[in-house]
Amino acid sequence: MPKIVDHHKQREKLAEATWRVILRDGMERASVRNIAEEAGLSVGSLRHYFSTQSELLAFSMELVSIRVEKRIKGLPFTGEPIADAQMLLWELLPIDEERSAEMAVWLAFTAKALSDPMLQPLKDRIYAEMKLGMISIIEELFSRYNTAAAATEAEKALEAERLYALLDGLAIHSVMKPSEVNSDVMKSVIAHHIKSICRSDRASD
Amino acid sequence: MPKIVDHHKQREKLAEATWRVILRDGMERASVRNIAEEAGLSVGSLRHYFSTQSELLAFSMELVSIRVEKRIKGLPFTGEPIADAQMLLWELLPIDEERSAEMAVWLAFTAKALSDPMLQPLKDRIYAEMKLGMISIIEELFSRYNTAAAATEAEKALEAERLYALLDGLAIHSVMKPSEVNSDVMKSVIAHHIKSICRSDRASD
Repeated sequence: MPKIVDHHKQREKLAEATWRVILRDGMERASVRNIAEEAGLSVGSLRHYFSTQSELLAFSMELVSIRVEKRIKGLPFTGEPIADAQMLLWELLPIDEERSAEMAVWLAFTAKALSDPMLQPLKDRIYAEMKLGMISIIEELFSRYNTAAAATEAEKALEAERLYALLDGLAIHSVMKPSEVNSDVMKSVIAHHIKSICRSDRASD
Repeated sequence: MPKIVDHHKQREKLAEATWRVILRDGMERASVRNIAEEAGLSVGSLRHYFSTQSELLAFSMELVSIRVEKRIKGLPFTGEPIADAQMLLWELLPIDEERSAEMAVWLAFTAKALSDPMLQPLKDRIYAEMKLGMISIIEELFSRYNTAAAATEAEKALEAERLYALLDGLAIHSVMKPSEVNSDVMKSVIAHHIKSICRSDRASD
């Protein structure tokens, strides 16, 4: 099915052109015209793949999460909760150039989603998926390392939100101040945080 | 000096109109023309107060931090580090409608600052000021409640970044998912986090 493959590839190519325009010129320049030009296509050809700008933006946002998901599936998980949690969380942080670009694009989309109804369902879905991922990390860590009385669902949800907020906050600070919040800082903060969760039995006494 | 007062008031009025446009229509609609219309002024009159769009946006971003700073100065601090830290941190979170609007505007500006050189110095200055604020909270908490051997500067900086990232992450999640990350959730996460910092002597053994 070479035609379908081509169709998919062209959509990805256009999404990547969208990322480049957003990174270089900002979201307000991400018009269909500018993106088509960046991709070396006519506006008419672009319309063949995406009938509206919102549709193109939604796919471009989704492509970030597809890429991240693909990388996570390929991680060499060990079965040891702390090591696995660190590996997974690092994959969600802008620890190198590729991930930093994704994060900057992601931040631009998140800001835009606040005023663009087309992007909201996607944003909500990804928030929910991320939250579930955080809850499963917390459950793994709690079941192996937290010797306190069984945590309630509410306590787990609180820890999951704390972890997820920390992760997004670090990612944003790193994009804002890459020299200050570099990959070493992010990794140290995450390692320290995971350690403190594993001992949170003592914090709740 | 009624003229100077008027000048200042008009600038604030235009900044507030900018916020409304950003909140309602997104940053990409925050053109000089749209903002002037929202404020009920002609483009020519607006140019009297701000000669460029970037200048208007920079002032609008700065006004968020001026408002927050003013509120913080009016807080009834008690001298008790945990209570004072909570009071201060809550002031930086979108716990009500006014603060949620500020945060949404702030997020839009932060995303824009990534591609607008005019906004970068301001963004850098505010990041640095916030970081200093976090370090002083951590120092207060450590000096009163953390019985571990004296923390190094590096450890304090790590805790300050962790606290600041958590704060910004919570704020962003609250703007993204106000029903899920409401003011009770944010307050609980912050309270839990401060408690765990105060016992971090045990986490580092």
